[in-house]
Amino acid sequence: MTKKRIAIDMDDVMAAAGKKILHTYNTIIGTNFKDHHFQGKAYYDVLKEEHYHVVREEIFKPGFFRTLEVMPDAVEVIKKLHERFDIFIVSAATEFPNSLKEKIEWLEEHFPFISWKNIVLCGDKSIISADYLIDDHEKNLSTFKGKTLMFDAIHNQKIEGYQRFKSWREIDTFFDGE
Amino acid sequence: MTKKRIAIDMDDVMAAAGKKILHTYNTIIGTNFKDHHFQGKAYYDVLKEEHYHVVREEIFKPGFFRTLEVMPDAVEVIKKLHERFDIFIVSAATEFPNSLKEKIEWLEEHFPFISWKNIVLCGDKSIISADYLIDDHEKNLSTFKGKTLMFDAIHNQKIEGYQRFKSWREIDTFFDGE
Repeated sequence: MTKKRIAIDMDDVMAAAGKKILHTYNTIIGTNFKDHHFQGKAYYDVLKEEHYHVVREEIFKPGFFRTLEVMPDAVEVIKKLHERFDIFIVSAATEFPNSLKEKIEWLEEHFPFISWKNIVLCGDKSIISADYLIDDHEKNLSTFKGKTLMFDAIHNQKIEGYQRFKSWREIDTFFDGE
Repeated sequence: MTKKRIAIDMDDVMAAAGKKILHTYNTIIGTNFKDHHFQGKAYYDVLKEEHYHVVREEIFKPGFFRTLEVMPDAVEVIKKLHERFDIFIVSAATEFPNSLKEKIEWLEEHFPFISWKNIVLCGDKSIISADYLIDDHEKNLSTFKGKTLMFDAIHNQKIEGYQRFKSWREIDTFFDGE
């Protein structure tokens, strides 16, 4: 029997991107923003436009994505899911050309069991066909035709209508029933 | 009405990769291979294993993909199709991490009307969902659920069962009827 496919987003699902962006803000701009300042908001809703551009420039620089922390329990749970499902990593990354190679290297370091064949670096994720999508952005979940799992994030607190998962442990439990 | 989607492969469909690989062979190994030596064969069927590895190393080096020639009429025809269809560029590129940024830059140079949102760099293309796929490899066409267009290439001469297109002009004519 063919294995079912799970497409998994990288930033803020596998890799702690938001945490580093927040740290970058505070370091560069000299602010002391905490997570709760961004609750239910995109980063640019909180920052002044001139600051947004400074931070955005930082994200475009080489190295930004290569050193992101792995989200808690992501390695263990994805490794377990990998035994029963076809795992595809699907990252909206083509906006950041410097991130592309770094994302592959990051995956090779932390998720060496994921083949290059199962990595997708794209922009608009509506072109992806799979049975499940784990993602923190509504724009990606809303066009997906399979089952959607919203990974809880500061910015998506106000989004309703999706099954929400606060941790990889919760995702593990969900797939035990699939 | 939503536009129909065309997924288009890069190497040997938009970009003359095979031509450069052949040139690389002949330059490095001191051979004088012509196109017809590779008819209906993958490159590694023709070369000795030790040569295959030398050439493969060359393809992995930075710069290889950045300078590929554009296939004849590709710009004009894709620009025209772009008006009536959603164009997605889908390249099996994650095997070659150095190629990723180069492929984005190459597209920006030659196809500036293609947004980063519509670029997909992946491995296994069976995860792609679109209405049409233009590709030179049977492995990509065989798992595709929409209409398939096989772009004629030296290596695919023996493959049957797909509508074959020898040029971008022929593809242009096909889509005039869609």
